[in-house]
Amino acid sequence: MARKKIGKQTIEFIDPPSIISTTSIVGPKEGQGPLSQYFDIILEDDLYGEDSWEKAESKMVKEAVKLAAMQGRLHLEDIDYLFAGDLLNQLMSSSFAARDLGMPYFGLFGACSTMAESLSLAAIMIEGGFADYVVATTSSHFSSAERQFRFPLELGNQRPLTSQWTVTGAGAAILAPMRNKGPYITHVTTGKVIDYGITDPNNMGAAMAPAAVDTIKAYFEDTGRSPDEFDLIITGDLGKIGNEIAIDLLKQGGLPINKTLRDCGVEIFDHVRQDTHAGGSGCGCSAVVFCGYLYKLLKENIFRKVLLVSTGALLSPTSIQQGESIPSIAHAVAIEGKLKD
Amino acid sequence: MARKKIGKQTIEFIDPPSIISTTSIVGPKEGQGPLSQYFDIILEDDLYGEDSWEKAESKMVKEAVKLAAMQGRLHLEDIDYLFAGDLLNQLMSSSFAARDLGMPYFGLFGACSTMAESLSLAAIMIEGGFADYVVATTSSHFSSAERQFRFPLELGNQRPLTSQWTVTGAGAAILAPMRNKGPYITHVTTGKVIDYGITDPNNMGAAMAPAAVDTIKAYFEDTGRSPDEFDLIITGDLGKIGNEIAIDLLKQGGLPINKTLRDCGVEIFDHVRQDTHAGGSGCGCSAVVFCGYLYKLLKENIFRKVLLVSTGALLSPTSIQQGESIPSIAHAVAIEGKLKD
Repeated sequence: MARKKIGKQTIEFIDPPSIISTTSIVGPKEGQGPLSQYFDIILEDDLYGEDSWEKAESKMVKEAVKLAAMQGRLHLEDIDYLFAGDLLNQLMSSSFAARDLGMPYFGLFGACSTMAESLSLAAIMIEGGFADYVVATTSSHFSSAERQFRFPLELGNQRPLTSQWTVTGAGAAILAPMRNKGPYITHVTTGKVIDYGITDPNNMGAAMAPAAVDTIKAYFEDTGRSPDEFDLIITGDLGKIGNEIAIDLLKQGGLPINKTLRDCGVEIFDHVRQDTHAGGSGCGCSAVVFCGYLYKLLKENIFRKVLLVSTGALLSPTSIQQGESIPSIAHAVAIEGKLKD
Repeated sequence: MARKKIGKQTIEFIDPPSIISTTSIVGPKEGQGPLSQYFDIILEDDLYGEDSWEKAESKMVKEAVKLAAMQGRLHLEDIDYLFAGDLLNQLMSSSFAARDLGMPYFGLFGACSTMAESLSLAAIMIEGGFADYVVATTSSHFSSAERQFRFPLELGNQRPLTSQWTVTGAGAAILAPMRNKGPYITHVTTGKVIDYGITDPNNMGAAMAPAAVDTIKAYFEDTGRSPDEFDLIITGDLGKIGNEIAIDLLKQGGLPINKTLRDCGVEIFDHVRQDTHAGGSGCGCSAVVFCGYLYKLLKENIFRKVLLVSTGALLSPTSIQQGESIPSIAHAVAIEGKLKD
């Protein structure tokens, strides 16, 4: 058996990588939500001075990485690898940001699970001794996602109540070896693709909930830990409906964790006041909630242990047209503010 | 500095991971090309018994992984991680294959550079001690790529002579620790995004050539090795025109390696007889040429050292419509048939 893998899906780090800095950039709507105070930059205009939403999204990624480097007192040249992904076809936002950043680049796609995917691989690079500094980043943009996946905004289509609102935002986190200060990544649990046969692309919370549950169960089975040890187990973007389904499925599966199970998509918007229906979604959702809110509270030791479980619906417009159901995935990253001596 | 990283972009493995088995599956046209004898499965019909090209492509991935596991005398459950990616939006072919394979899954996107990207990350997982068996796989399909990126085939558009022909095929390679037999991955060099301002999506060889050259130069600078040590330096899918540009650029850059610099896209088709213009392309191109042809000749010690440099054009239809040039990337993987005692 491998040195550091425990159980079937989990890696336990012997020298947990440190997250030395993070940056979160969000759009105007996210800046009016309940987590407003935690974000580093709130855009006044979601075009961010660019002439398209896609370019604005790419600029958010680039600026988030630059600011995270600055906050970590690093030059861009100090960063060994960039792990990045987004929702746009061919990762337009990540690829163009990578062009301008000039770092060795691994492009990732895990739909809205990409933040945990990038954090997982970045942590593996660090703990394996392959790099001194790695940046993990993801983004999404409401308008670029609507244009690509749904209808022209100008049509004014009515959104069903199960639908979610793609977060405009980018988060970037810089990882380094354990000798640096915390928070630290102690474990990563890599998800399998789970598909319960949901076919409604306007109800992705329901499609993704079983994947989140599968990965959460794998994490606790593999580590032998108890959910009670965690201040927070937070899924990526199940939204309100997906969150309720996940709580039910966990209870049925003998792992009742309704108290501490929250969701980035639920936290980021005030659903009634902001009319976002089931909640936020998009790669940027768990990215900015982690890089903004969670990281800061971990750093201040208000949260001691957090399990971030970013969730992704791996459908494509083509797969839906061909009658396929929605395969989903969730990756988990366990983070602790301080390590025991 | 990190333990195993040398130079700016290269990791030198202390215990080079072994590639214990590979499988290549190709379409009928590839099966009529010059490398025909090296492929494990040649499809008679590129629908592969499915009702869409996308599903056929996904089936190729699934079957390639299954067969590679069988050839490695492994059950699918023995494989710790699946690294996969393809050209389709939202990685339809990889994601649906991952659903059926049931392994912890990292989705990757590096356009046609994805085979080297997946081999790189798989090798890092193995050498870092995080896994016993990892599978790296990528695919492409002529018809699914044409449908997504270009025109309906039924239109019969005329193809310019600079255009390339997307390979129908999937390759899968299973990696394990060095205690197993070779071939071995000795180094990985991770590419940066390079963009020389080419804007013609029908001339991707020209767009990608500078990225290939940048990564090849980085490999030799980082390792201090000489191109003469290699039997073959083989790019992913520059095609004939891109290959000539790469040879010129290398010569200008003081690294003349015209004799050993070949290209998977040039090798896979007989361009005159098969009317494929500048050559093959697609994630599947370097995947099947590596998993079929190169792996077998490395195993038989006919090739002793090969540098595989998969190349990707990171454009999207949206980025082209928005007037952007074509950012490109190349990742290199150095493979040796036997290690010195």
